[in-house]
Amino acid sequence: MTVALCTANFAVQSAQDTSKMDSRPNIVMIVADDHGLDAIGAYGNQVVQTPNIDALAKDGSRFENAFATVSSCSPSRSVILTGQQNHTNGMYGLEHKQHHFRSFDDVKSLPVMLGENGYRTGRIGKYHLGPEDVYKFDQVLSKGAANDMQSIARSPVEMADKSAGFIGESQQPFFLYFASDDPHRGHPFETYPQPNTFGNRQQGYPGITEVVYQPEDVLVPPYLPDTPAARKELAQYYQSISRLDQGIGKLVQVLKAQGKYQNTLILYLSDNGIAFPGAKTTLYDAGIHLPLIVKAPGVIQPSEGCAQDAQLCTSHEQMVSWVDLTPTILDYANVSRSGAEIQGKSFKPVIESDQKSGWDQVFASHTMHEVMMYYPMRMVRTKDYKLIWNIANGLSYPFAADLQQSLIWQDVLRRGITQYAGRQIEDFLHRPEFELFDMKNDPQELHNLAYLAQFHELRAQLTLQLKTFEQNTDDPWLSKWQYE
Amino acid sequence: MTVALCTANFAVQSAQDTSKMDSRPNIVMIVADDHGLDAIGAYGNQVVQTPNIDALAKDGSRFENAFATVSSCSPSRSVILTGQQNHTNGMYGLEHKQHHFRSFDDVKSLPVMLGENGYRTGRIGKYHLGPEDVYKFDQVLSKGAANDMQSIARSPVEMADKSAGFIGESQQPFFLYFASDDPHRGHPFETYPQPNTFGNRQQGYPGITEVVYQPEDVLVPPYLPDTPAARKELAQYYQSISRLDQGIGKLVQVLKAQGKYQNTLILYLSDNGIAFPGAKTTLYDAGIHLPLIVKAPGVIQPSEGCAQDAQLCTSHEQMVSWVDLTPTILDYANVSRSGAEIQGKSFKPVIESDQKSGWDQVFASHTMHEVMMYYPMRMVRTKDYKLIWNIANGLSYPFAADLQQSLIWQDVLRRGITQYAGRQIEDFLHRPEFELFDMKNDPQELHNLAYLAQFHELRAQLTLQLKTFEQNTDDPWLSKWQYE
Repeated sequence: MTVALCTANFAVQSAQDTSKMDSRPNIVMIVADDHGLDAIGAYGNQVVQTPNIDALAKDGSRFENAFATVSSCSPSRSVILTGQQNHTNGMYGLEHKQHHFRSFDDVKSLPVMLGENGYRTGRIGKYHLGPEDVYKFDQVLSKGAANDMQSIARSPVEMADKSAGFIGESQQPFFLYFASDDPHRGHPFETYPQPNTFGNRQQGYPGITEVVYQPEDVLVPPYLPDTPAARKELAQYYQSISRLDQGIGKLVQVLKAQGKYQNTLILYLSDNGIAFPGAKTTLYDAGIHLPLIVKAPGVIQPSEGCAQDAQLCTSHEQMVSWVDLTPTILDYANVSRSGAEIQGKSFKPVIESDQKSGWDQVFASHTMHEVMMYYPMRMVRTKDYKLIWNIANGLSYPFAADLQQSLIWQDVLRRGITQYAGRQIEDFLHRPEFELFDMKNDPQELHNLAYLAQFHELRAQLTLQLKTFEQNTDDPWLSKWQYE
Repeated sequence: MTVALCTANFAVQSAQDTSKMDSRPNIVMIVADDHGLDAIGAYGNQVVQTPNIDALAKDGSRFENAFATVSSCSPSRSVILTGQQNHTNGMYGLEHKQHHFRSFDDVKSLPVMLGENGYRTGRIGKYHLGPEDVYKFDQVLSKGAANDMQSIARSPVEMADKSAGFIGESQQPFFLYFASDDPHRGHPFETYPQPNTFGNRQQGYPGITEVVYQPEDVLVPPYLPDTPAARKELAQYYQSISRLDQGIGKLVQVLKAQGKYQNTLILYLSDNGIAFPGAKTTLYDAGIHLPLIVKAPGVIQPSEGCAQDAQLCTSHEQMVSWVDLTPTILDYANVSRSGAEIQGKSFKPVIESDQKSGWDQVFASHTMHEVMMYYPMRMVRTKDYKLIWNIANGLSYPFAADLQQSLIWQDVLRRGITQYAGRQIEDFLHRPEFELFDMKNDPQELHNLAYLAQFHELRAQLTLQLKTFEQNTDDPWLSKWQYE
């Protein structure tokens, strides 16, 4: 961490703050849909325009090593809102339509715990979770579902406007779960030879000044092939991100206007990596290494140069994952975890005092995306290495429908190309049981070390950690070590 | 069909029947747990003692070609009670614990349709379905779950006693869903070198005279190896069946004592094949070709010789499957199917007038058993041929825990035997994408014809039927023809 410390004194109150009786911070959690690390100003992208997300990073800090524990929407959101791996809470795959995954009825979620402890809880936009009794909010400001064009989750300024009343209520601190559809791919998924819209539309959205990007200007991340098709789709993706960014700007405006910005903990994150083959639904870093920006409650003390360049703002190298979000928020809200099985731990000490120890490892667990897309993987990642156990490696790696039908992929298929970014497509689709990568020297995860003699000991060590993790989190797939 | 016709005149009333206002028949559906075709007197087994099941066959008729559409408890029960394939109603696997499958909230089940149309509905014993709002009965006479030793589902005479009050109520016709745990394997599953108990216990059960069998006396069906281990477990299985049989005797006694036997439609069936490797969880006939005995409402007219020998009683050669149960019952109850998506059709015309046409094909669909046991298969079977599509054939065939841990299987493993009945174990565990069998000449399904040139046309025809079936039943796995 560099320089700035935000004091997290819950007694700090802005002059206009009317909740005199309970000085605990408000909480706003902004969850983007499929927003990767590569397209945010604060994380170094100079092309995409995200001034409002960057402003949060300036008033707070960003995590350089934040990870989703699964690269699929519903499972990841279940982890975000419970502090449990999806294989523990039962959300093994997507919630909507025939996929129909549901968390167990006895799971205790973050909004329920906050609600039972004096917080007003409200949600707006994308939901994609079930059952509703488990993920219960006091108020539903706008019912979203999965990629739901009928909801306002593609219209983030409207979302912010619609949140104003909830934010403005004077009693009790609040928890607002603000989840956009942006920048998810838009329906229909199949658009070849045109790029997917990513929700962009001719008539625009209320309150939004659409930012249009040219394919030649976008930055192609190294895990994607630099093709005209990729660039066309990235331009659309950028536009969707800039729209979301304006909604965040509006939301911050609402908080400030009501004198609640300072005493509000704001988190910006994404459920999983970008909706391009090679990222979303994989446990490669492109699928799970994600933005996490946290503006803590309290007085803001920007670090030097930060006002001019968000990259100079406070950042943390510690490794955190989405199981840590619920315990962190409970910690800020001063709510005890008793009674709930929570697997992560609070990173408040990282934000407040740059705590170093205990933040050197994350785990991930992916089982299904759509119900037909069974491909269980378990992963342990340190700063140096990653081990992935591909449990059903006898199967071809199954695609999400939106990735399968994407222009970028269809273009590769139709041109009969055998390579995708640095990978052979054949290797991408047919994986060995174990993949072991040197993340420092091979950040694109192209060279599998799992079967080299000199790495057998490391692989054995990481395997043991993986098994222990599975035991500690009641993973049903633990039995596969024995039976398959 | 031979000889006897049961008149199905709904106006027929027994002298003591008090439901004067509604003369529609009562319905009792008895669902056994893992009871195969091979261990019932009426189906030709001279060793196992099932006098009460046989008596139902004498007063009614038996189906020689009745099939479950999936060989797994919860999915099969969901089909039985909806008339939809499990891949249509959402119950892709087991309901209990971490498996947690649930039918879709908008599915309309048999008890709900009967309840809305003037029937009193009650259930007793094993349930293993969800959500409860979908599979809603007016009365729960005893809450069962999955293999639940705390319920009375192992004590079938008690079940019958406990049903008496419900049966005796005077208003409205009733639907009683009577589901035993017998003859499922008992907990603990792992008993090597002892046989599994199949629920048998030292102290017995109230009202039951336990029938104990000697391993040397049992009949080993051709799909099991004739080993001492197999015989020991079959002896336990027989004992469990005879216990269930006595509960059925008691239930019939209760119906007769209340003057309701004659105007009651009684069905005896099983959810899937016996809990031995090679049967349950497979789509081989051992897993899905099952008993179905139907005593229709009306005056009983036994066929010649039937009183002395149940095998001489009325039987039907028509092919029916468990999707046909719900429409058949609705037909007897004179309830319209409108508003519910039902895929099967009523076999009342088969029972009443030996209808021949339209009963020459059944389909099956298995996806998961336990949630970790992904092995989707789709099947079409005519009297002559069966085609199985093993969608995830890259995987090793996954066992149910109770089969994996069974004495019969552990004995084979520990002795290092490579053959199991007529099959190579290697072939049993690793299957090709397609299996095509000549059911007349190869009833044990040992010789796969799918890849022989002379059967390519037949395979193509059956494949087309399978795809049409999947289209007509909204099968999510239909996409696998395209994407895997």
